[in-house]
Amino acid sequence: MAEPNDIYEKVMELAKRRGFIWPSAEIYGGVAGFIDYGPLGAQMKRRIEDIWRGFYVIREGFYEIECPTIGVEPIYVASGHVKGFSDKMCQCPHCEEYLRADHVAAANGCGNAATLPAEALAGALKGAPCTACGEELGDVRVFEFNLMFNTQIGPGSQRKGYLRPETAQGIFTDFPRLLRFYRDKLPFGAVQIGKSYRNEISPRQGMIRLREFTQAEAEIFVHPEGKKHPRFSLYAGYRVPLLGCSGQEGKGEPVELTMRDAVAGGLVANEYVAYYIALTHDILVTVGVDPARLRFRQHLTTERAHYAADCWDAEILSKRFGWVELVGIADRTDYDLRAHASVSGVALTAYLPLEIPRMEKRKRIIPDMKALGPKYRGQAKEVADALMKADPGPEGAEVEVGGGKVFIPASLYQVREEEVEVRGEEVMPHVIEPSYGIDRMCYAVLEHSYDEEMVEGEVRRVLHLPAAIAPVQVGVFPLVSRDGLDTVATEIAALLTAGGIFAEFDESGAIGRRYRRQDEIGTPYAITIDYQTMEDGTVTIRERDSMAQVRVKKEGLGDIVRGLIAGNISFVSLGP
Amino acid sequence: MAEPNDIYEKVMELAKRRGFIWPSAEIYGGVAGFIDYGPLGAQMKRRIEDIWRGFYVIREGFYEIECPTIGVEPIYVASGHVKGFSDKMCQCPHCEEYLRADHVAAANGCGNAATLPAEALAGALKGAPCTACGEELGDVRVFEFNLMFNTQIGPGSQRKGYLRPETAQGIFTDFPRLLRFYRDKLPFGAVQIGKSYRNEISPRQGMIRLREFTQAEAEIFVHPEGKKHPRFSLYAGYRVPLLGCSGQEGKGEPVELTMRDAVAGGLVANEYVAYYIALTHDILVTVGVDPARLRFRQHLTTERAHYAADCWDAEILSKRFGWVELVGIADRTDYDLRAHASVSGVALTAYLPLEIPRMEKRKRIIPDMKALGPKYRGQAKEVADALMKADPGPEGAEVEVGGGKVFIPASLYQVREEEVEVRGEEVMPHVIEPSYGIDRMCYAVLEHSYDEEMVEGEVRRVLHLPAAIAPVQVGVFPLVSRDGLDTVATEIAALLTAGGIFAEFDESGAIGRRYRRQDEIGTPYAITIDYQTMEDGTVTIRERDSMAQVRVKKEGLGDIVRGLIAGNISFVSLGP
Repeated sequence: MAEPNDIYEKVMELAKRRGFIWPSAEIYGGVAGFIDYGPLGAQMKRRIEDIWRGFYVIREGFYEIECPTIGVEPIYVASGHVKGFSDKMCQCPHCEEYLRADHVAAANGCGNAATLPAEALAGALKGAPCTACGEELGDVRVFEFNLMFNTQIGPGSQRKGYLRPETAQGIFTDFPRLLRFYRDKLPFGAVQIGKSYRNEISPRQGMIRLREFTQAEAEIFVHPEGKKHPRFSLYAGYRVPLLGCSGQEGKGEPVELTMRDAVAGGLVANEYVAYYIALTHDILVTVGVDPARLRFRQHLTTERAHYAADCWDAEILSKRFGWVELVGIADRTDYDLRAHASVSGVALTAYLPLEIPRMEKRKRIIPDMKALGPKYRGQAKEVADALMKADPGPEGAEVEVGGGKVFIPASLYQVREEEVEVRGEEVMPHVIEPSYGIDRMCYAVLEHSYDEEMVEGEVRRVLHLPAAIAPVQVGVFPLVSRDGLDTVATEIAALLTAGGIFAEFDESGAIGRRYRRQDEIGTPYAITIDYQTMEDGTVTIRERDSMAQVRVKKEGLGDIVRGLIAGNISFVSLGP
Repeated sequence: MAEPNDIYEKVMELAKRRGFIWPSAEIYGGVAGFIDYGPLGAQMKRRIEDIWRGFYVIREGFYEIECPTIGVEPIYVASGHVKGFSDKMCQCPHCEEYLRADHVAAANGCGNAATLPAEALAGALKGAPCTACGEELGDVRVFEFNLMFNTQIGPGSQRKGYLRPETAQGIFTDFPRLLRFYRDKLPFGAVQIGKSYRNEISPRQGMIRLREFTQAEAEIFVHPEGKKHPRFSLYAGYRVPLLGCSGQEGKGEPVELTMRDAVAGGLVANEYVAYYIALTHDILVTVGVDPARLRFRQHLTTERAHYAADCWDAEILSKRFGWVELVGIADRTDYDLRAHASVSGVALTAYLPLEIPRMEKRKRIIPDMKALGPKYRGQAKEVADALMKADPGPEGAEVEVGGGKVFIPASLYQVREEEVEVRGEEVMPHVIEPSYGIDRMCYAVLEHSYDEEMVEGEVRRVLHLPAAIAPVQVGVFPLVSRDGLDTVATEIAALLTAGGIFAEFDESGAIGRRYRRQDEIGTPYAITIDYQTMEDGTVTIRERDSMAQVRVKKEGLGDIVRGLIAGNISFVSLGP
């Protein structure tokens, strides 16, 4: 029923009117790239986050940590964001609007705008019309705009601070503490759910391109040679539509493979990446993404970070925006830990005992102190120490002494070969990172669950949300607000609330209108108290999707509703 | 056992070592005013937030919303933060450290440093030593430092943005949407839990004075003449230690009063304030604040905001910091809505139908068009329109026409008195605001629950956390890791986890050491699988606080543990 082209407007109109999503600072004219979650939206978002925690924190056993959103500069020097987290921008000479240079060029038919350097991009913009005012841009300068919000920590420009562009860096910088928390063993994981920031040049896509957004990220630290997932069997037979690197030319249809086959065939790099692809599919479908509009696309070698061993995006099909990335799953190798170790000077490795200690041949250099003493005098001790760490050639060894380089001839020391027992080794773990955009997930679920249908000559708008994420879980209605029906309904609503169910009592308007109001916000069930309730103690339960009704005893209603929401009881099993 | 002076160090050492609280960006030397919540701290914090939601969202029925942390300037112009949210600062001429001028003066014996203007404060600082380097400050300039973190939204300094200093403003700016959501009725409430920011000049108090912190705020919009709380009976008999304005000289002992008496005696301004004082006491004790170290202190008239009708702080006694504010509860009247209405130009009122429509006499002005026409020609219509809205004197009415003022003599119009039926009125609600500092609550709970005792000649460190907030809810230990005990223990841990209980399996070290490890992080119960388990299917449950153990059947263990944690089952009732 919903027309394909305006489904975005319809979803957003409903979201705004019913309290899911509101423009931020609306009384001040709003501000692009920011949204408020209204009462129902915030509740739905929290339920989605809790389902995510159910998978990652409870089932996977990865503890959640919480780091500040403001970080000091060295963190983002190490991560590469200070240097490389930028978009190419230009300014329209006519309307003075700032524009994403690559977007304008692409809109003007430039096929490779995303990868062009600044000067080439300026060339491609020459004949292009400004996307804001329509005038021809002409000669414009294209320059990099860093997308981090910056600020000052403390008075007097003491310290530069940035609003984090991703939650991940907090987990990396806490690596030494986390390693100790997990008792110096690999693999382990830590997760974070929280705000991240990206100072977009001119965001115009509502919930898809936000300047402040919520991420849920997991960083899983694994042995570089241990990319077999210990629980792989859980998802080995799970089927996911995969669009590999090489399948993206032409029509680009994904192939549906089991994770076992995807890894065995070499399409997905390893079991870890495959496991989290499957788990992501599992989460997304659980929260209400339509599996028919969901695919996993591998990054092309041109878009993949140079250090990444493999990278896949979970993408959903939106009527308005086309394929939209919701989740990225990457094998980031040791890039992040290596970068932070290098900038901070702290060793970010794990000392892991070997299962079987191994014997290793090592060269030991024994300085000849009798010869070194007379020759180097006061420096002899320093020369000897340096020699013991040196890597000598056949003629001698070059060592650093007192800041300068000194060549020590082979005659001044002995080289002895020894066998030593190696009981463990310092290992810099690799990182597997599934990274979720929670706001985009919320939008995807709203769009995919939105429907319109003709019922009794009227349009019924309905959100087919999974019961687990519906903000209101059950509506409670007295058929009429008199003859004691309202009192019984109030009592039932209070009882359900006390039992941890989010119930909404509503007595205003015709019963049909009240059903529609709940349909529109995705409430999966509605309970009506009518005159028969007063006679035999039964109430009706109506299912949102089928609009079917059954009568049940009001005793035990809480257990039934809980069971329906948790999916342990099927609606059909309740009635005749 | 714990020595009073170093309890802070002991608590923080434990918190750091066991993964509650870590210095932020530690590998880069840390940064004052920021902390990381480690795995256990984040879990505990989340449980405290969820208990808060249980009170405010589920029981009170106030929906939660979620607004961005970055706000545009007009919001904070209206709220007064751009102008007035600052501390007085000076810079030490010797060590160049920036200092809170009032803190330095107070440390030097100045009694009223907090309320002195800048120049007087500079005078008070003359002989004072720098709190950083100890040198005498001499002549220093004292100036205001605005405590909001600022940033730029978008490229080209397009828009100034601030990191919110409180979550409240998002609720105020959403008032029109919230009012519609609640179907144009008063009272209603909305809450928000999230990050707020305060760019402290030189924070040195760990978790007490953070630059980035978590607030939980409720804004309850009430009719200005309706400050009787509809559910007051719930807390009318609840007793709270209250330290009123007038009781704060001298020893300043609080008096314990029921809320009914506190309101009746005029100590607390109204039922709304009293209700949320009691509810706050209830929450704080529930999450583990020691009631013997908790009081509610009324703001002195000198510290209370000029617009506030009443204001109380919930304060806890800390060994290190003295009385520390955790929560503020204020009747802010219509200050916030009035300020935003004035700056935004949007009417922030509710149109409320009167229960009984009332008749009101109104003057209606009827312009004499026959006389106005010839006199004002083309402007006659404009004059007539202006007249109808005018407030005429006995001689005539002054009206604005075409930008200028024109006097219209009484002969050119008629005044008719009419009775009209008034069915409703525009009301600007008053706001009751309970505002919680979640980080300080976390610290208070850690300090109040920390204890050391001698057990079998060794110090037992224990956190007596309420079961409801303990990060790990139950430890599961095989007595030894062989003979199948470890397998059974693993199965039990998995079963408990699947049942929604956060269980930690631990098989390393002596059983006594494992108990101690859990005591230290506040795990309320531990289950041990021993050789008897293999014979008769029973396990032991040990209670953290009493260290007592009982044997129970392993069937139904989940229900028992859930019951113990929820407080529905007492440990004593389990066994001999």
